[in-house]
Amino acid sequence: MMAVDKIGQATYAVQGVYIQGTGSVVGPKEGQGPLGQQFDRVWKDERAGQATFEKAEQALLIESYDEALKKAQKRWEDIELVVGGDLLDQIITTNFSARQHGRPTLGLFSACATFTEALAVGALLIGGNGPKTVLASAASHHQTAERQFRFPVELGYQRTPTTAWTATAAGAVVLSEDVGPLAIEAVTVGRVVDIGGKDPNDMGSAMAPAAFDTISQHLQDTGQEPGDFDKIYTGDLGHFGIKMLIEYAAQKGLQFGDELDDCGRSLYNQATQDTHNGGSGPGCSASVFAGPLARRLVRGDWDRILLVATGALFSPTTYQQGETIPCVAHAVAIKAVRGAGQ
Amino acid sequence: MMAVDKIGQATYAVQGVYIQGTGSVVGPKEGQGPLGQQFDRVWKDERAGQATFEKAEQALLIESYDEALKKAQKRWEDIELVVGGDLLDQIITTNFSARQHGRPTLGLFSACATFTEALAVGALLIGGNGPKTVLASAASHHQTAERQFRFPVELGYQRTPTTAWTATAAGAVVLSEDVGPLAIEAVTVGRVVDIGGKDPNDMGSAMAPAAFDTISQHLQDTGQEPGDFDKIYTGDLGHFGIKMLIEYAAQKGLQFGDELDDCGRSLYNQATQDTHNGGSGPGCSASVFAGPLARRLVRGDWDRILLVATGALFSPTTYQQGETIPCVAHAVAIKAVRGAGQ
Repeated sequence: MMAVDKIGQATYAVQGVYIQGTGSVVGPKEGQGPLGQQFDRVWKDERAGQATFEKAEQALLIESYDEALKKAQKRWEDIELVVGGDLLDQIITTNFSARQHGRPTLGLFSACATFTEALAVGALLIGGNGPKTVLASAASHHQTAERQFRFPVELGYQRTPTTAWTATAAGAVVLSEDVGPLAIEAVTVGRVVDIGGKDPNDMGSAMAPAAFDTISQHLQDTGQEPGDFDKIYTGDLGHFGIKMLIEYAAQKGLQFGDELDDCGRSLYNQATQDTHNGGSGPGCSASVFAGPLARRLVRGDWDRILLVATGALFSPTTYQQGETIPCVAHAVAIKAVRGAGQ
Repeated sequence: MMAVDKIGQATYAVQGVYIQGTGSVVGPKEGQGPLGQQFDRVWKDERAGQATFEKAEQALLIESYDEALKKAQKRWEDIELVVGGDLLDQIITTNFSARQHGRPTLGLFSACATFTEALAVGALLIGGNGPKTVLASAASHHQTAERQFRFPVELGYQRTPTTAWTATAAGAVVLSEDVGPLAIEAVTVGRVVDIGGKDPNDMGSAMAPAAFDTISQHLQDTGQEPGDFDKIYTGDLGHFGIKMLIEYAAQKGLQFGDELDDCGRSLYNQATQDTHNGGSGPGCSASVFAGPLARRLVRGDWDRILLVATGALFSPTTYQQGETIPCVAHAVAIKAVRGAGQ
């Protein structure tokens, strides 16, 4: 039986909402990284025969939908609602894909925190007796994001050591009230936090305080400590940002142990792939969860994780106007359901 | 007692979710229009002393929050969740405002359909035993939208007869499980519809089929006819788009009567204000509902309305790449609660 109950300030305990299937599709660089074997599909090139990189990003997202539906043994007609978003202006990847599937759709945007926003909204709606089956997703593409947020890739401009590498990746999950291999335990909706960072080439440092805010809120609301989770995965703080989070949390009296890791830090081999701070983009945490993390939960390596996707909410306009970078993180606690196969 | 129940294909009946207060703040041109007296605040100039128009748009949104909270007799601490969005890339208006109020926030985007998306998400979450009190909003600003989507206003370029005028306007409502003057009856989440329109200067025609799709879905799911509502207000189809909707619906066997009207068509005096097709932007339907429509419901002119905000989901990038314009509409049925004063 599904149920939603608010606990504490910003957390909702969820009962009876399951992940029935996950789909993860990534580009060639992501496929060559340390997690490459654990995605459903790895593209051989970033364009995949599409006329534009924007169309390629849509194709990437739709392939992740197809994989999630296949594993959940659902057809499109079973999907009552699609919730998701992406990094492109007016979230065109999600919205243009929606004209293909034709299912009722709610567009979301929390930058690189969009995947956990989608999981949270989907879980709360199912838990609240709304739709029975929801497809939640997020996507990004290196080529479309770079030219929108930074420079045309053809320029070959030099990237600073703290710059993230926007992942070509999409992740989707089928959420349902029918029992599946994973279950949503609780969600915490984040507040927007801005400590005054201004450098769009160091988003990890800017996002660390937002990650701390949401993680500590979740722990406080649920009466837990970091070690109560087998893993706490932030979204794309990267190599620098995760250090910032550990230091920032220590100053506030919260000690992380080995359970803390980051999707963006895990996606590439920093030494050989020239990815600097690590992976970013809404598709980073979406694909890393839908591929590697979901697999490890299902096969029994872990029982419970807290996924905390992190987003930097600036735009090129706000950067040019000298604004600081507000950030947000949304947390979703996910546990394995033993005895239900995926 | 709150409850959510799915009825039909895409509609959710909602019980026990109320609108406790509404806030509407508009720019000078909107204040000079036929609805000018019915907004809470009318700005004397579009910049209102802010350094940039983007900051002005944020100030506009925050003023609409303040008005809604005041009328609902709520403080910021009472707001458990903010849901909303705007037209600017990366929905910066909503997200930058969120660092000021510091409440948990879910960013949404359905272009000019964002306000009913926010109402729908807020109502379903409250009805599903999530947060007790939610602030739902949408905003737009003529100067920020024009330079993002079309040209710098300083160019003085000629606008075609079907071009909409992006409204400088914000609307916010406090949704709560505590009884208020208005109640949410039901919501229908729209599908993305694309009939192949390519002209960003004729969004009314592009959006009309999406409006039809959602309205007819709502009527079918709830077993109603258009005349069962005192008013059906689409978002910003405008003078041309509403004619398209009437013709398109007639071809499909659905006849509208006097109950059909449009927020964008109502906002300006077409003959004297040089606004061509009428108002558009997420703030258009948000402010017209939060001001004039809510007032008429409360004072007894109408008992029930269907608000159907409409959105064109293109971006400058998709336009330049020769893409067509996908559109969406989300519907929310709202009724007056007699005996509860606002």
